[in-house]
Amino acid sequence: MKVGYKIWIEDDRGNQLIGEGLEQLLLAVAETGSINKAAGKLRMSYRTAWARIRKAEKRLGCLLVAKQVGGTRGGGSRLTEEGYRLLESFAEFHRAAGKEIETLFQESFLHLLQSQS
Amino acid sequence: MKVGYKIWIEDDRGNQLIGEGLEQLLLAVAETGSINKAAGKLRMSYRTAWARIRKAEKRLGCLLVAKQVGGTRGGGSRLTEEGYRLLESFAEFHRAAGKEIETLFQESFLHLLQSQS
Repeated sequence: MKVGYKIWIEDDRGNQLIGEGLEQLLLAVAETGSINKAAGKLRMSYRTAWARIRKAEKRLGCLLVAKQVGGTRGGGSRLTEEGYRLLESFAEFHRAAGKEIETLFQESFLHLLQSQS
Repeated sequence: MKVGYKIWIEDDRGNQLIGEGLEQLLLAVAETGSINKAAGKLRMSYRTAWARIRKAEKRLGCLLVAKQVGGTRGGGSRLTEEGYRLLESFAEFHRAAGKEIETLFQESFLHLLQSQS
């Protein structure tokens, strides 16, 4: 047996703001410096990746990804300060929650399931 | 903002064994003493409720719900010892994990999101 879980942040109306999908997408944009390359890495279309980012930006009321103008790698995209802040906050929360769920699964669920037999 | 989550237990092949749906269904069977009344309470058909329980039983290799024979309320259903053990173990784990996720959401996610601004 193992434990499965999904964790996300939503607004007060129940609209998702960030979950594992957007976390991976923002991380891939930060790593590749391009929405197109990030989309390719996650095997989704540019259109889908772009739409997911824009939907989150609209709900949050701030830009998460900005066009990178000029420079030797001009034409790419980068995370804004708000984008980094959201990614880092969620990634840390997600990691800590996952670790806690795994611990509780071992120490609470499996322990209870076995101790009562 | 608020946090959303789903937690379930699965077997090593990735098949779900118990999640919030089966937890509520087993609880309703324990409370009503009848799969039919439990299904009605959760607004699902008897057929759906019965199939969910049987699928979990098949995957777990044990009975969770048994027919109650005779007595003044004969004809109903009750949880087996294994059914109670699974329900109580998962309900306690689910409750503890939810509490921990809420605490981490407040103390980790919201704290990180705000402290970096």
